[in-house]
Amino acid sequence: MVMTTTTMTAATLADLDTPCALVDEARMQRAIVAMQRRIDALGVALRPHVKTAKCLEVAQRQREAGARGITVSTLKEAAEFSAAGFDDILYAVGLAPQKIGAAATLVRQGCRLKVVVDNVAAAEALAEAARRDGVRLPTLIEVDSDGHRAGVPPDSPLLVPIGQRLHDAGLLAGVMTHCGASYECRGVRELEAMAEQERARCVAAAERLRGAGLPCPIVSVGSTPTATFARALPGVTEVRAGVYVFQDLVMAGLGVCAPEDIALSVLATVIGHQRDKGWVLTDGGWMAMSRDRGTQMQPRDQGYGLVCDEHGAVLEDWVVLQANQEHGIVEHRGGAAAAGDVAARFPIGTRLRVLPNHACATAAQHDGYVVVDGGAVVGRWPRFNGW
Amino acid sequence: MVMTTTTMTAATLADLDTPCALVDEARMQRAIVAMQRRIDALGVALRPHVKTAKCLEVAQRQREAGARGITVSTLKEAAEFSAAGFDDILYAVGLAPQKIGAAATLVRQGCRLKVVVDNVAAAEALAEAARRDGVRLPTLIEVDSDGHRAGVPPDSPLLVPIGQRLHDAGLLAGVMTHCGASYECRGVRELEAMAEQERARCVAAAERLRGAGLPCPIVSVGSTPTATFARALPGVTEVRAGVYVFQDLVMAGLGVCAPEDIALSVLATVIGHQRDKGWVLTDGGWMAMSRDRGTQMQPRDQGYGLVCDEHGAVLEDWVVLQANQEHGIVEHRGGAAAAGDVAARFPIGTRLRVLPNHACATAAQHDGYVVVDGGAVVGRWPRFNGW
Repeated sequence: MVMTTTTMTAATLADLDTPCALVDEARMQRAIVAMQRRIDALGVALRPHVKTAKCLEVAQRQREAGARGITVSTLKEAAEFSAAGFDDILYAVGLAPQKIGAAATLVRQGCRLKVVVDNVAAAEALAEAARRDGVRLPTLIEVDSDGHRAGVPPDSPLLVPIGQRLHDAGLLAGVMTHCGASYECRGVRELEAMAEQERARCVAAAERLRGAGLPCPIVSVGSTPTATFARALPGVTEVRAGVYVFQDLVMAGLGVCAPEDIALSVLATVIGHQRDKGWVLTDGGWMAMSRDRGTQMQPRDQGYGLVCDEHGAVLEDWVVLQANQEHGIVEHRGGAAAAGDVAARFPIGTRLRVLPNHACATAAQHDGYVVVDGGAVVGRWPRFNGW
Repeated sequence: MVMTTTTMTAATLADLDTPCALVDEARMQRAIVAMQRRIDALGVALRPHVKTAKCLEVAQRQREAGARGITVSTLKEAAEFSAAGFDDILYAVGLAPQKIGAAATLVRQGCRLKVVVDNVAAAEALAEAARRDGVRLPTLIEVDSDGHRAGVPPDSPLLVPIGQRLHDAGLLAGVMTHCGASYECRGVRELEAMAEQERARCVAAAERLRGAGLPCPIVSVGSTPTATFARALPGVTEVRAGVYVFQDLVMAGLGVCAPEDIALSVLATVIGHQRDKGWVLTDGGWMAMSRDRGTQMQPRDQGYGLVCDEHGAVLEDWVVLQANQEHGIVEHRGGAAAAGDVAARFPIGTRLRVLPNHACATAAQHDGYVVVDGGAVVGRWPRFNGW
């Protein structure tokens, strides 16, 4: 499917080639407004992470709702969004020294790009580029708030030396953290505690820098789960969150949303059956869903996705339990005995929507979104991939 | 990285943006020649599955080596390869009735497209299109040779009725099967037995059709493991195989190849460390590797990929054990104690190649390949994705 236009073409779901990615615009808009209100009420800025949708039309709606600046996961996202007029951009992956040149080019083109480091070598590379070439990339120090991935712990002996090197070069802009461990929480109490941990450790790092006489204007935290469950954010200046814009089954499993709130789905067509096994074969395989099995470790494993009818109503007991490249195998949770006559229930040619485990991964398998309002196709939005 | 040309640009690995997909052309060419010789020696045609690379330059080399026709997994592949002069194409996914129009368009444009069905409803939709619109799509009946996915078992009461309907419409071209269960075999004996099972069941279906007075000129079987281990193929007319062109860690785990034979890798850059844990963080996350964990069920779990140095020499004990969207976490199999000082061994900015679990999935995360010969960049080949 060629995605070259955002204009409407008169079409219904029946006219679509499958598999394709659908976005229910009303659900998305509700999520955008709800998160913006929540972060507004907490008194800080919302800087959405655009890595989930990689789509200008989506980010424009987040900006219209009140978002301030965006977060990106690649310099390609920075370049695409900067060219489209988003000029306040945080590149939230530790900067490889080899990327300083590309980042500097964006700054020279007018982008207010900020970058992230968590080690002395990268800080020195940035300082050296500033000295040698006048490259000025405001830099946040990544703080490890959960032992999950990158960052220096707030009590690390490296925190102040990194800050000092950046400050000496005129680059220190603050601290940031991402509490990815929030994806492993169970229940509201754990999520609230994780949000507080993320806040407290990032603010502690900021206070240590300030105590050493260094400036720390930005204190940036976030993930969709912690943004959804944070009760108060004293000391924080901004929240980053990405996946909330579409939501997904991992978020539903955490209690962040309900399956009925998920705006992204994959439309697939029934192409066969194995009646004895209760299998329904579709053309929605892992190429369309991604290989992401994010609900595998949750109490309710949703396979490669939860099945809905063509109009988006959840068929609670039907999941894509197996996937090949271009084949999905839909099964009833209760097995063949519970499935009944699958060929009668889901005849060849039936259209199904499948809700994704992980919206970022599923969306990345597509080059655009078909925007739907109930059974009507109301637009097509391109997205981009790559680096 | 924009992939718009196949011409050389003077470059070395050090000039590349990361992450990016590398293809070692010499390894690929060896695999192409070896498989062609093997299938030639078995006295049947090789019809490569181009879904792995989705790249004209790769398929051209397979054709030059002696391949006859290609296999595709999407009608987009059919359209792209047909436009480039590949006119003998098998679309090897059960045809959804909604796709008959698009398939017919390709036939009218001169493509000798063949399609696949495994049920009466799809056969009748094809027959109806032939009657109504004169659409003539030669059709193979998919045979279930392993209980793994789609297809009718060779002894199914549906086999002959499907064949009869296709034949009455002048569409019956033969039978085909894919023994995906070969991916779960352990050891040469099991693989040889699975190749024989695939052959025997597909030939049995052909014989049943012929016994009912129906023609069955094509008998098409294949997967990379069964193509590699088949000892004889009496009754078969062609073999399909895809992943052999790049090979991958799943194939290495099966004994199809060695890790040193894998032609596809992802080049990534070290962006950080967690020294206490022995972690090396890179910019090669699951967006670059895919979420495929195909070695998880094999005796040797390779995480998200096996790490090599910049020049492709395998670092046997280092694997990408965790991955986020744009972060890979490289760890030593022996844990932090065995890892030593990771910051000294893999300084910030170090380049690493990572071999993929599943070449089809990893390649699909990229819009092209950087072709390398040792440390030299010798070309760039575009690939396409989508439907």
